[in-house]
Amino acid sequence: MTEFRMDWARGGRTGASEAVLCEPKTATQVDAIVAHAIELGARLLLTRLGALKFRRLSAQARAALDYDPVTRTAILGTLTPAPGTGRVAIVCGGTSDLAVAREAERTLRFEGEAATLIADVGVAGLWRLTEQLEEIRRHRVVIAVAGMEGAIFSVLAGLVPCAVIAVPTSIGYGVAAGGKAALHAALASCASGLSVVNIDNGFGAAHVALRILGTATPAPTTILPH
Amino acid sequence: MTEFRMDWARGGRTGASEAVLCEPKTATQVDAIVAHAIELGARLLLTRLGALKFRRLSAQARAALDYDPVTRTAILGTLTPAPGTGRVAIVCGGTSDLAVAREAERTLRFEGEAATLIADVGVAGLWRLTEQLEEIRRHRVVIAVAGMEGAIFSVLAGLVPCAVIAVPTSIGYGVAAGGKAALHAALASCASGLSVVNIDNGFGAAHVALRILGTATPAPTTILPH
Amino acid sequence: MTEFRMDWARGGRTGASEAVLCEPKTATQVDAIVAHAIELGARLLLTRLGALKFRRLSAQARAALDYDPVTRTAILGTLTPAPGTGRVAIVCGGTSDLAVAREAERTLRFEGEAATLIADVGVAGLWRLTEQLEEIRRHRVVIAVAGMEGAIFSVLAGLVPCAVIAVPTSIGYGVAAGGKAALHAALASCASGLSVVNIDNGFGAAHVALRILGTATPAPTTILPH
Amino acid sequence: MTEFRMDWARGGRTGASEAVLCEPKTATQVDAIVAHAIELGARLLLTRLGALKFRRLSAQARAALDYDPVTRTAILGTLTPAPGTGRVAIVCGGTSDLAVAREAERTLRFEGEAATLIADVGVAGLWRLTEQLEEIRRHRVVIAVAGMEGAIFSVLAGLVPCAVIAVPTSIGYGVAAGGKAALHAALASCASGLSVVNIDNGFGAAHVALRILGTATPAPTTILPH
Amino acid sequence: MTEFRMDWARGGRTGASEAVLCEPKTATQVDAIVAHAIELGARLLLTRLGALKFRRLSAQARAALDYDPVTRTAILGTLTPAPGTGRVAIVCGGTSDLAVAREAERTLRFEGEAATLIADVGVAGLWRLTEQLEEIRRHRVVIAVAGMEGAIFSVLAGLVPCAVIAVPTSIGYGVAAGGKAALHAALASCASGLSVVNIDNGFGAAHVALRILGTATPAPTTILPH
Amino acid sequence: MTEFRMDWARGGRTGASEAVLCEPKTATQVDAIVAHAIELGARLLLTRLGALKFRRLSAQARAALDYDPVTRTAILGTLTPAPGTGRVAIVCGGTSDLAVAREAERTLRFEGEAATLIADVGVAGLWRLTEQLEEIRRHRVVIAVAGMEGAIFSVLAGLVPCAVIAVPTSIGYGVAAGGKAALHAALASCASGLSVVNIDNGFGAAHVALRILGTATPAPTTILPH
Amino acid sequence: MTEFRMDWARGGRTGASEAVLCEPKTATQVDAIVAHAIELGARLLLTRLGALKFRRLSAQARAALDYDPVTRTAILGTLTPAPGTGRVAIVCGGTSDLAVAREAERTLRFEGEAATLIADVGVAGLWRLTEQLEEIRRHRVVIAVAGMEGAIFSVLAGLVPCAVIAVPTSIGYGVAAGGKAALHAALASCASGLSVVNIDNGFGAAHVALRILGTATPAPTTILPH
Amino acid sequence: MTEFRMDWARGGRTGASEAVLCEPKTATQVDAIVAHAIELGARLLLTRLGALKFRRLSAQARAALDYDPVTRTAILGTLTPAPGTGRVAIVCGGTSDLAVAREAERTLRFEGEAATLIADVGVAGLWRLTEQLEEIRRHRVVIAVAGMEGAIFSVLAGLVPCAVIAVPTSIGYGVAAGGKAALHAALASCASGLSVVNIDNGFGAAHVALRILGTATPAPTTILPH
Repeated sequence: MTEFRMDWARGGRTGASEAVLCEPKTATQVDAIVAHAIELGARLLLTRLGALKFRRLSAQARAALDYDPVTRTAILGTLTPAPGTGRVAIVCGGTSDLAVAREAERTLRFEGEAATLIADVGVAGLWRLTEQLEEIRRHRVVIAVAGMEGAIFSVLAGLVPCAVIAVPTSIGYGVAAGGKAALHAALASCASGLSVVNIDNGFGAAHVALRILGTATPAPTTILPH
Repeated sequence: MTEFRMDWARGGRTGASEAVLCEPKTATQVDAIVAHAIELGARLLLTRLGALKFRRLSAQARAALDYDPVTRTAILGTLTPAPGTGRVAIVCGGTSDLAVAREAERTLRFEGEAATLIADVGVAGLWRLTEQLEEIRRHRVVIAVAGMEGAIFSVLAGLVPCAVIAVPTSIGYGVAAGGKAALHAALASCASGLSVVNIDNGFGAAHVALRILGTATPAPTTILPH
Repeated sequence: MTEFRMDWARGGRTGASEAVLCEPKTATQVDAIVAHAIELGARLLLTRLGALKFRRLSAQARAALDYDPVTRTAILGTLTPAPGTGRVAIVCGGTSDLAVAREAERTLRFEGEAATLIADVGVAGLWRLTEQLEEIRRHRVVIAVAGMEGAIFSVLAGLVPCAVIAVPTSIGYGVAAGGKAALHAALASCASGLSVVNIDNGFGAAHVALRILGTATPAPTTILPH
Repeated sequence: MTEFRMDWARGGRTGASEAVLCEPKTATQVDAIVAHAIELGARLLLTRLGALKFRRLSAQARAALDYDPVTRTAILGTLTPAPGTGRVAIVCGGTSDLAVAREAERTLRFEGEAATLIADVGVAGLWRLTEQLEEIRRHRVVIAVAGMEGAIFSVLAGLVPCAVIAVPTSIGYGVAAGGKAALHAALASCASGLSVVNIDNGFGAAHVALRILGTATPAPTTILPH
Repeated sequence: MTEFRMDWARGGRTGASEAVLCEPKTATQVDAIVAHAIELGARLLLTRLGALKFRRLSAQARAALDYDPVTRTAILGTLTPAPGTGRVAIVCGGTSDLAVAREAERTLRFEGEAATLIADVGVAGLWRLTEQLEEIRRHRVVIAVAGMEGAIFSVLAGLVPCAVIAVPTSIGYGVAAGGKAALHAALASCASGLSVVNIDNGFGAAHVALRILGTATPAPTTILPH
Repeated sequence: MTEFRMDWARGGRTGASEAVLCEPKTATQVDAIVAHAIELGARLLLTRLGALKFRRLSAQARAALDYDPVTRTAILGTLTPAPGTGRVAIVCGGTSDLAVAREAERTLRFEGEAATLIADVGVAGLWRLTEQLEEIRRHRVVIAVAGMEGAIFSVLAGLVPCAVIAVPTSIGYGVAAGGKAALHAALASCASGLSVVNIDNGFGAAHVALRILGTATPAPTTILPH
Repeated sequence: MTEFRMDWARGGRTGASEAVLCEPKTATQVDAIVAHAIELGARLLLTRLGALKFRRLSAQARAALDYDPVTRTAILGTLTPAPGTGRVAIVCGGTSDLAVAREAERTLRFEGEAATLIADVGVAGLWRLTEQLEEIRRHRVVIAVAGMEGAIFSVLAGLVPCAVIAVPTSIGYGVAAGGKAALHAALASCASGLSVVNIDNGFGAAHVALRILGTATPAPTTILPH
Repeated sequence: MTEFRMDWARGGRTGASEAVLCEPKTATQVDAIVAHAIELGARLLLTRLGALKFRRLSAQARAALDYDPVTRTAILGTLTPAPGTGRVAIVCGGTSDLAVAREAERTLRFEGEAATLIADVGVAGLWRLTEQLEEIRRHRVVIAVAGMEGAIFSVLAGLVPCAVIAVPTSIGYGVAAGGKAALHAALASCASGLSVVNIDNGFGAAHVALRILGTATPAPTTILPH
């Protein structure tokens, strides 16, 4: 039986390369997927690959992958050198949100898109955000990453003209534990122009940004490419 | 059987007058309580008294009460004329939050305390808040009233030096319906100096403000005043 | 006291005109806002304005507004004639989702953007979606509107190259009542390129689409425009 | 005191053999049950028996059991050789769902029924499902196993004529964590012909399939077989 | 624009006729669908069609439909006379669950399948269930309909050899309000052989039963029948 | 088909008379049950019978029933005159909880047991409770009825030696709406000797009290009394 | 500062000895409490004392305590020899519920009351319960302990005449994880005579049973015994 | 890129020193912040800094910090000697709540404010609270810390005249697990004068108390202090 069916035609259909969510997979399954990709000469982004599971991969896989333990991402294939000026700003509510923000950044770079990362501009000290505002407004898309009460989502969306993608994070405790408070704040925002991805989903936000930038010129495709 | 036991000794114990939550009571029960208070010459604040139920009260009760249908409050006894300068600022996220904000204001005035009401300063247009900031900062206590995502709670608490009491409101739809999103935002706030009362509880916020102001000089009391 | 502070500078700051959520406001409050806008000669979009409340508005307001009871929207000012070819596709899971879809459409047209509305393409009969696929793929942005289990969000995002904005609707019963099942399906999607707005928020999805299209050329702005 | 009462009469009453959920039991309790079954010459299926707990069982138990760590199932008694053609198709949304899918497969084989396992046919790349469609439609019952947003349940139920049993899995993060999003998607499906078992309950789905196939010819039974 | 796309090919693909969930549709939309079906000479089942909305349909539609206010179902086309002996038993926990049970029964009869309805056999008086047990066991499929705590699902599944489809109902108050307690009881059942449909979904349970009976001999089909 | 199966043997089995939850039943169903009971000369307690539904009952039923609109209970058969000294104390947190408290009282009297009702002893004015304490402690069982935060459950259970049955009520708003806050307070109590029934279930609390008093001398019974 | 204040007067007030919930306390805190009790010659029941924490207690404490790792209870003072015939039956749904059931049993014995423990009588094999029925009915109080869907609570309460105390357990997975499904089933039961304690609270159920038995003859007490 | 932006101007704006929530930060991030503060000669409060993470800090940081493992707080800079008489009373429901209570106390002392800590005055033995009442009433602010059902919040607020800040804790199991039951009890309280902070947020409660005391005389400030 085939344990996995890679969607190598995804690029043609949606403009995005294949990516593998590693958290619920065994090391053996990840290894097999990487080996298959190496064989085909395909590029691959692995997400939520914990350091322990990475160490359990085969030597071949470990050698081939560019692994980053903070974001738990691994990349098969070269990262395009970041262009001079990024079109995406990634704005973090707090220092603690950086791992998710950088997952977004690595995903963008894997697809050849640079990003500007602006950290720790939470609204408790509003000047931290406002003094970065002109810089942020220069970008074509903003990814906002925040946990706890996620107030920054509304404040930002009311201050910039471009699409703001909210990534609620699981940072917080009590009623904020797990990220539901920040998620609901993003969805219930009184500011328009804001859309939301799943909690801690930096990867997903990057892909929304890529589609917004419209870099993909997908080939004509059908449902059944094979 | 006695259907109600008024806590007339509350003032001595906690500094607050008796108040009656009318929503879950029948008109007959409210009538009996009002009649009892009139008999004793006591002052009384009735909250969540809908217009329909008010109309079903006895003529005596209706004549004796100063009723306001927007806030659904009724007052037995005179309102102290508001002093020149209020010590409490009541700040509203949106026009829709005014009914709750005014419940707080009427409660404060019933206890002899003036308040400054500042409406519709939601964070989607941040200038609306910042242009009121110096005015707000002049007060000793801030009551912040907001529904939807409640981002204003954190922004305010980061900009003023006094205690901020958050009143989440049930304004909103989808994930904001019922006020839970605003409540959780207030509780999970990254800004300190913020405390929270129940959803739509303008009455409660006013009483917290009164205790903060420390106007009450309660008489020595015991658990069993009777 | 000022009951409302319109954010007429929003266009300069974010590219979007002012809009008013009417559901939690009294008819008196809506009337005052409309009168103020008429006075200023401003354009205005009113959302969630029920037919009953519309009928309680002043004759002046009713005469000035272009009201649509299905979407519960009213427009002050002329709708730009829809251009020949829309850049936004609005795709509905079921006939029942049309009211929300049309709220998105009216919002887009209010901002001068045409949309193609494609209804009842739920996945229970997959051919309904696939036979519209080439048409859908011609657009620059897709707004997907669906209730119940919201399976269409993932299917669509896997088949088109542009950004897909999911609008979960409150259509459904049992575990789907209120729209949480569809919302969670959209957020948890295995397909990338999908972002989400609040339940039934057709207005919000339209604004995300507008920002993606980048039609706004906002003037330089500050936090405090007044 | 008797710590357990095996329901050996279950086969006569419902057609199913006894099975033991091991997760909440101590190794001592599992050991006693296995010893009792060996003594009676009974066949037994153990589910949710973690590798650690298995290693703590007595040597006798370990020797007697056919243990599989991936599915965490152990079988006492021989597995009937799988017949040439299975009547049950087990379809997985993702590679990560295989452990649950194989729990279903082992349960079916324990009861003498073969199954065809078809993995990684998630809807993000719809062709993966459609290219297997003719194969899937050949079966008498379909067990669909998926986590995250569970969109595959509706898509499948709309494409095949037989009963589809949905097994939501706990695969996913954020709003999908724990499997509730997939569960609700299955229950709220716009496609008919779909019924649902508990999250991660591959064992339960297999038993529903067995009852649908109607292989059991249970003896006449009473409530009180002993 | 086409407001609805009927899936007339569904029978060929899945064996089930088209059905229309009327609750979230306007009377105008329902009218249009019925008119379209009459024109094509198609049979149609309408569910969740409240008495008020039925009265707002056109005279033509009302005349053509066989409407039942208790189950809120309407049928276009003749009901096959019920065969002598039903293969499906519909078992109700309480008298209050009858509306849902009868929705299942009408759905079955619409598809030409008889059912035996056995009411008010809740477990609080266990004899009510056990004295019907031999009768229930004679059927090929059991649909169990119950609200409140749904204990009957487990008891039944432990006593009969055939597939039991649980339909939790929204009957109950307090923690049972809305049907979640019964739903969770069905999903968490300690008895195997039980699968579950959405709360109050008698229609859905009937369709699962039909697929189990395997009466459908669907024609070869494709995803894109049109 | 039989629509209902009365459990007239319940008294022999559990000591309690039959009772009928009317809320989810149609007036026709209630009428049929009452007629059946009249025919048999049986006593019957009807609960959650709203005034509107009562008025829709047949003249015969209305004449035969002793109906109380506040508690929404109706009794067929005479109420035993209350004995001089009750063994059950029913203690209310607030005036608003009286309807539920009196449902408990009527249920007890229907079974021949008197109760002492003590109202409005909420903990916000602790003296109201403590001044009744000696009176409360004289009883054999205490039923405590309270909504909002339900603090009285713990306070009472720590002060009396007999079993305390908590009935959380749906009185309250915001996080207390529906009674979940009071329910969880009762279950999570730091005081022992407290057990809990469903929200607003005064009827259920009375039956627990009756079983505690052990008045029932049930005849030997079997599962299948018929 | 005093870290703890033992309520040694509790026996006089409520009939129950002091007990200490150890889970949230540090070993140092538990040690201090035990030392204090030893000094006073007081008896003490410790609950939720994990094996690890027990091992971290002082040698003096470990020597003085009768510790049972399965129930995680420790007793300071002698257990009264169990009388010949227990008045309390403790009935378990499954073998997995035994730890909670035995916590109840140890608590009863600590207070001098014997209990009959009847295990693994889950409703999936109803005969297991019915063959124990006459034995169970001989008792004055029944404690029912069950996880998963908790169907046994309703079945039992419908078959015995005495008070049934439901203890939902956290045994189960998916929707049953943590015990909420069983808890809600107990609260929403269609059978009367059932009351409920917190999830896994065997200790609490025992205390309700003790109060029902009314063994306590508490001395006259006041709120302020010191 | 700057990973953190300290808000050193916070004191001028709100009267509170900077504080760092360490739980979601890496040891490297905490180290960098501490080094930066040392460099600037700034005072700093670190919260939720677990013992393990503290041990992973640099030697310089560990030497400079006054670390307390129970409250998981570390202080950079000297603690002002506590003044003779505290104005804040911190009242604990149980011994288990002491860690949170002491986090509040350390936060107060870091800001130069003394507090009186009164432990284990839970309402199950009401005398424990009432015998401390006169002492508690002497303070200007009360912080009440309690888990489980949080009944003490209402009882206290009804007995003292000053503002009561409720800190629900995550102490408890079953429905109390995580602190939601205590949180909802505090918010739904029938007593006025009570406001609430997030679960386990002793730090936050201290800051509310500080603002109530109004010790801060913040300098005139602007949004953009830098």
